[in-house]
Amino acid sequence: MPVEETFWSRVQTSFERQGLMQHIGARLLQVEPGLCALALPYSEQVTQQQDGFHGGAIGALADIAGGYAGLTMAPAGMEVATIEYKINFMAAFKGGEIQARGRVVKAGRRVIVTTAEVVHLDASGKETACAVMQQTLMVVPKNY
Amino acid sequence: MPVEETFWSRVQTSFERQGLMQHIGARLLQVEPGLCALALPYSEQVTQQQDGFHGGAIGALADIAGGYAGLTMAPAGMEVATIEYKINFMAAFKGGEIQARGRVVKAGRRVIVTTAEVVHLDASGKETACAVMQQTLMVVPKNY
Amino acid sequence: MPVEETFWSRVQTSFERQGLMQHIGARLLQVEPGLCALALPYSEQVTQQQDGFHGGAIGALADIAGGYAGLTMAPAGMEVATIEYKINFMAAFKGGEIQARGRVVKAGRRVIVTTAEVVHLDASGKETACAVMQQTLMVVPKNY
Amino acid sequence: MPVEETFWSRVQTSFERQGLMQHIGARLLQVEPGLCALALPYSEQVTQQQDGFHGGAIGALADIAGGYAGLTMAPAGMEVATIEYKINFMAAFKGGEIQARGRVVKAGRRVIVTTAEVVHLDASGKETACAVMQQTLMVVPKNY
Repeated sequence: MPVEETFWSRVQTSFERQGLMQHIGARLLQVEPGLCALALPYSEQVTQQQDGFHGGAIGALADIAGGYAGLTMAPAGMEVATIEYKINFMAAFKGGEIQARGRVVKAGRRVIVTTAEVVHLDASGKETACAVMQQTLMVVPKNY
Repeated sequence: MPVEETFWSRVQTSFERQGLMQHIGARLLQVEPGLCALALPYSEQVTQQQDGFHGGAIGALADIAGGYAGLTMAPAGMEVATIEYKINFMAAFKGGEIQARGRVVKAGRRVIVTTAEVVHLDASGKETACAVMQQTLMVVPKNY
Repeated sequence: MPVEETFWSRVQTSFERQGLMQHIGARLLQVEPGLCALALPYSEQVTQQQDGFHGGAIGALADIAGGYAGLTMAPAGMEVATIEYKINFMAAFKGGEIQARGRVVKAGRRVIVTTAEVVHLDASGKETACAVMQQTLMVVPKNY
Repeated sequence: MPVEETFWSRVQTSFERQGLMQHIGARLLQVEPGLCALALPYSEQVTQQQDGFHGGAIGALADIAGGYAGLTMAPAGMEVATIEYKINFMAAFKGGEIQARGRVVKAGRRVIVTTAEVVHLDASGKETACAVMQQTLMVVPKNY
C-alpha cells in the first residue's frame, strides 16, 4: 500500500468520526506527511448573522486541517489533541466554498506546532485569502 | 423598556440570524452591558472523533459569547466583527452542556478586547473549566 | 519556614538568573500559589519609537508573570517553559511603571494555562489597563 | 532615490527611536515592501534563567519584524500600532544570533495581518527554527 494511502486512511478514520464535520458537510481534500487540506461548501448550516461563512465554522475547519496535518507526524498508536489555536479573519464570504490547508511547522516529541491558511473559492474557482491560524497540538495516546 | 431588554433584543436579533448557532442548538442565556452567556447542549451534531464536544463548536460558542459581549458596547447603528481570537482547551467532555461566558476587557472606539471562559456542566449541574479565549473585535457599520 | 517564603525563593532564584529582566530593571512584587506579580519602571531602556513602553518589554513582563505563576504549581525538581503566549495591547504609556499580574487558570500534569493582566501606574499611583495575555506552559525537568 | 531606500529609511527612522531595541543590540537587516528582517546577537542582556535567549527578547524581535513589515504597507503620514500578537517558541538557544523575518499576510485599510518566523544562527551560520508569530496591526496617524 502506498505511504500516502496510509496517511489518508489514518486521517479519514478520525475525520468520519467527527459529528460536527459530517454535519456541516466538510470533506477531506488532501493528506500528505505534514499537510492536510479540507473543504467546506457554503450552506445555511454554516452562516453568521450577515449570511456569510460563520467564524466558528472557519475556525473549526482550520483547527482540523492543522490537527490532521499534525496527526500525520504522530507515532503509531498516538494521536493529537489541540492545546490551543489563534485565528485571524481577513474577509467575509457568501457562497462558493472555503478550503483550509494545514501545515506542520515543527513536530516535537510532545508538542506539534502548525499553521493553516483558509481561502475562499467562488463559483468560478477564484481564490481569496479568508483566514490564517497558528496552533499548538499535544501528542496523546489514542484511546478509541 | 428596561435597558437590559434592549441589550437582550439587540443580541437576540443577530443571534437568530446565525444559521450555524441555530443548527447546532445553541441558546442565549444572558445579555448585560459588557457580558453575554450562551449554552450548547451535547448532541451528535457537535462531536469530534472521540465523541467529546468538538473544539470547533467550543471555539464558535466562545467567539460568539465574546462578540455579543462586545456588541453591547458598540454605538447604535454599529456592530462588531471578529478580527481574531485565541482559545486554550483545558479538558474534553461528553454529555451535559457547555456554557460560554464572554466579558469585555476594554471597549475602545475602533477595537474591543474581550475574554470568554467556557465551562462544562454535567447532568447534575457540576461545573468544570473547559476552555478560555481572548479576542479582538472591530467596530463596523451594521449593514443588514 | 512559611510556605510563602518557599514559593518566593523558588521564583526569586530563577528571576535573578534572567539577564534581560535584570538589565531592564524589572523587580519581583508578589509570589503566591498560582500568582506572581512583577513591576517594570519606565526608563530609556524600555521605550519604543514614540517614547512609550515598548510592546516587547510589556510582553516579556507578562510572559514572566504568567510563567512564574505557573512555576509555583510545578512539582519539585521541575520547572516550566513557555510553549506560547498571546497578548493584546490596550493603551500606550510613558513614565511611571507597569505591573504584570500572572494567574494560573488550569494546572495540568504536562501543561499549565495562565493569564496575565498588565496595568500602568502613573506617578500618583493611578492604575490603567495596559495589556492582557493568555499563555501555555509546559512542565519540564529543571536542568540548572 | 530607489524605492527600496525609501522603505529602508522609513523603517530605520522609527527603529533608531526604539530604546529597547538599541539597548539590547538589535539591528535592521532587510526592508522591502511587505517584508522586514532584524537580527539580535546573543549577549548577557537578552538571557533567561538557563542562559538561553529570553522569550521576551524573541517576542520583541518578532513583534517588531512584523510591525515594520506592516509599516511598509501603511499610507504616507500613517504608522502602525500592534493590536496583539501570538508567538510559539519551538526551541531554546545560547550563543550565535537570532533573526526575525516579518511578512505581511493581508494589508487592509484599517488592519494589517502579519506573520514572522524567528530562526537561530549558530557560529557556523547554521539555521534552526526558533519561533513563529502571528500578529494584528492597526493603521494609526503618525504623531512624532
